Amino acid sequence: MIKTDIIIIGAGPTGLFTVFEAGLLKLKTHLIDALPQPGGQCSEIYPKKPIYDIPAYPEILAGDLVDRLMEQIKPFSPGFTLGERAQNLETLEDGTFVVTTNKGTAHNAPVVVIAGGLGSFEPRKPPIGNIDDFEDKGVAYMIKDPEVYRDKKVVIAGGGDSALDWSIYLSDIAAEVSLVHRRNEFRGALDSVEKAAALAKAGKIKLFTEAEVKKLYGDEHLEAVVVEHNDKARGESYVEADHFIPLFGLSPKLGPIGDWGLEIEKNAIKVNNSYDYQTNIPGVYAVGDVNTYPGKLKLILSGFHEAAVMCQSAYQRINPGKRFVMKYTTVGGVTGFDGSVKEAKKEVVQSILA
Amino acid sequence: MIKTDIIIIGAGPTGLFTVFEAGLLKLKTHLIDALPQPGGQCSEIYPKKPIYDIPAYPEILAGDLVDRLMEQIKPFSPGFTLGERAQNLETLEDGTFVVTTNKGTAHNAPVVVIAGGLGSFEPRKPPIGNIDDFEDKGVAYMIKDPEVYRDKKVVIAGGGDSALDWSIYLSDIAAEVSLVHRRNEFRGALDSVEKAAALAKAGKIKLFTEAEVKKLYGDEHLEAVVVEHNDKARGESYVEADHFIPLFGLSPKLGPIGDWGLEIEKNAIKVNNSYDYQTNIPGVYAVGDVNTYPGKLKLILSGFHEAAVMCQSAYQRINPGKRFVMKYTTVGGVTGFDGSVKEAKKEVVQSILA
Ligand SMILES: Cc1cc2nc3c(=O)[nH]c(=O)nc-3n(C[C@H](O)[C@H](O)[C@H](O)COP(=O)(O)OP(=O)(O)OC[C@H]3O[C@@H](n4cnc5c(N)ncnc54)[C@H](O)[C@@H]3O)c2cc1C
Ligand SMILES: Cc1cc2nc3c(=O)[nH]c(=O)nc-3n(C[C@H](O)[C@H](O)[C@H](O)COP(=O)(O)OP(=O)(O)OC[C@H]3O[C@@H](n4cnc5c(N)ncnc54)[C@H](O)[C@@H]3O)c2cc1C
Repeated sequence: MIKTDIIIIGAGPTGLFTVFEAGLLKLKTHLIDALPQPGGQCSEIYPKKPIYDIPAYPEILAGDLVDRLMEQIKPFSPGFTLGERAQNLETLEDGTFVVTTNKGTAHNAPVVVIAGGLGSFEPRKPPIGNIDDFEDKGVAYMIKDPEVYRDKKVVIAGGGDSALDWSIYLSDIAAEVSLVHRRNEFRGALDSVEKAAALAKAGKIKLFTEAEVKKLYGDEHLEAVVVEHNDKARGESYVEADHFIPLFGLSPKLGPIGDWGLEIEKNAIKVNNSYDYQTNIPGVYAVGDVNTYPGKLKLILSGFHEAAVMCQSAYQRINPGKRFVMKYTTVGGVTGFDGSVKEAKKEVVQSILA
Repeated sequence: MIKTDIIIIGAGPTGLFTVFEAGLLKLKTHLIDALPQPGGQCSEIYPKKPIYDIPAYPEILAGDLVDRLMEQIKPFSPGFTLGERAQNLETLEDGTFVVTTNKGTAHNAPVVVIAGGLGSFEPRKPPIGNIDDFEDKGVAYMIKDPEVYRDKKVVIAGGGDSALDWSIYLSDIAAEVSLVHRRNEFRGALDSVEKAAALAKAGKIKLFTEAEVKKLYGDEHLEAVVVEHNDKARGESYVEADHFIPLFGLSPKLGPIGDWGLEIEKNAIKVNNSYDYQTNIPGVYAVGDVNTYPGKLKLILSGFHEAAVMCQSAYQRINPGKRFVMKYTTVGGVTGFDGSVKEAKKEVVQSILA
């Protein structure tokens, strides 16, 4: 059982900044996310696109925003359970909560913060009869560790940035990369399309366009896929494959959180915005895109404010009766759990003519 | 009469970011500040100190934060009335407001936002009987345009960063710079103290320590000051001076805003935080450090969120019944009033094998 002060469900920008605000109050945090990487929508949907309304950033790429947040929270050494979906919420007799994932990892803390955005990112699966049988046996819907594919035969399906970028990346690592897309045109950043084109011409990516993977073969583990061409005259291609990775995008689903007894409105969790972003279950908060209240804006900058306010309330819950004297970071500095200290240079008091 | 959509009182970080959020909604803004420069507390009190809790900035100097905000709002070309204090608020028959400054500048708009922080920064004046008579006739408490002092004889009083930094700066411009401080020790950034020391040794700054300016002389305009030494044995020094600039710090005072009929609590303006940060006067909002509500945190990041939420409500007030379809900046880009356009690179849709 992983124990911490605050369990944060969702490692998007809001969840990440919650680590920082909690850390300033000396509270430890642990993040759970269904995605293999932190950053939520910013990492999964538009990492290479600019955002213009992050305060004091006239322009910042979504991926860079996540990198800067990761750097900012580093001193507070948060725990991470990635690639797992928070599935169950249970209240123990002592009033603390246990959050268990779909893979059985259990987390215990006196406070739970749901920073789940539009929901847990779940893969869109292609309609292949026996695909579930091969999950974790050659079929995966997202790439956690590219090293798994070293010297293997890999088939990727999809026509967007993820399919392009992973085909490019793995062409250097895998024994063979095939890219299957049901149309002829790909949709992605110009340089991704161009790089993939160059690799396809050089024979480092085997391209199947106007085609779809329709069958999977294998015994214990995946061994081959069958690619069906739209042009019936061309029939089917049998492609040896250790791995099949359909990258048709991940779509967010509120999912299990919807069954935890929280008040839900417009697919979001109702919170008390006139005080501390707490839900109808005391000790469970909701911040960022996942919450709703009158006038709610689904903006990154709102998640940051909500996280700061919510952490003050969590502090009270965890340390009843204790008063936390809030100091400006400029004045009090930042003391990390990793022993690091950041602080402003002190003023000197000295005579000019020594 | 200056006309705009939103009059913003206070050009601190919150007021500045309000320009941006209003601009996204195509609303024009005009800022009023008692200080000669934008940035509020960040510029006036701690421009060279680092802040650690601006989201996605692991560290940023307060002065740099202001610069980045100024860059971000540039496309929305806000108006500025600087160095003037908003003094009166009046409601016209058509429901719009007129805000007039202590210097008589009048501004008219359907919405007023008070982003006044801890209040209007007012100088701490030294107790010299006739000092008021010389205001604008040689005596000033802040420096708006250093060129005014070119080839003049200037006496600066004070022992902190402002006194040090302006003495250093003007030593290059003025005919003569004298620095008067009632103690022997100065309190400031190490490099400021060192630079001032070097200039004093080189005779480019005339130093009077353990001394105070006690009398002012002049006919129409200041002509000389009398410096009294703490050590009575040393008596007084008569110093010719075209300008006397006491820099004893500015202290914020809620001031005239306190008499506008707004509900005040703990020296701050009560707002409706559960919806839109509006005050008890419809059409008048308060955001940033100047407002109060249950759970309020006087943090820069909170001002940013409040500004975004408040602008949505202002939009409704200015465009009754019209619906604004909010687009993410990443998706909709930023179109400035100055004709500039920022937008994300478009995805391409193209075949890999051309
Ligand atoms: C194309 C696009 C452009 C955008 N542009 C802007 C913009 O310009 N400005 C702006 O402010 N905003 C913009 N946004 C919105 C912005 O990305 C969101 O407001 C922001 O990501 C919300 O952050 P969050 O941390 O609340 O949630 P998210 O980023 O959605 O992260 C939530 C995370 O929680 C995880 N999660 C949810 N439920 C579970 C569960 N049960 N178990 C495990 N994990 C779970 C999800 O997998 C996800 O990773 C844009 C969004 C998109 C899609
Ligand atoms: C030493 C120090 C360190 C700090 N460190 C941090 C930190 O680490 N993190 C953090 O988040 N915050 C920090 N703060 C607080 C932060 O600076 C404030 O929260 C922030 O400046 C508030 O911004 P604002 O725009 O609301 O108000 P302000 O910055 O106070 O600006 C308000 C402006 O309104 C003007 N004004 C007011 N009334 C009138 C009037 N009637 N007419 C004309 N002008 C008027 C004032 O002159 C002023 O310029 C710190 C503050 C100090 C002093």
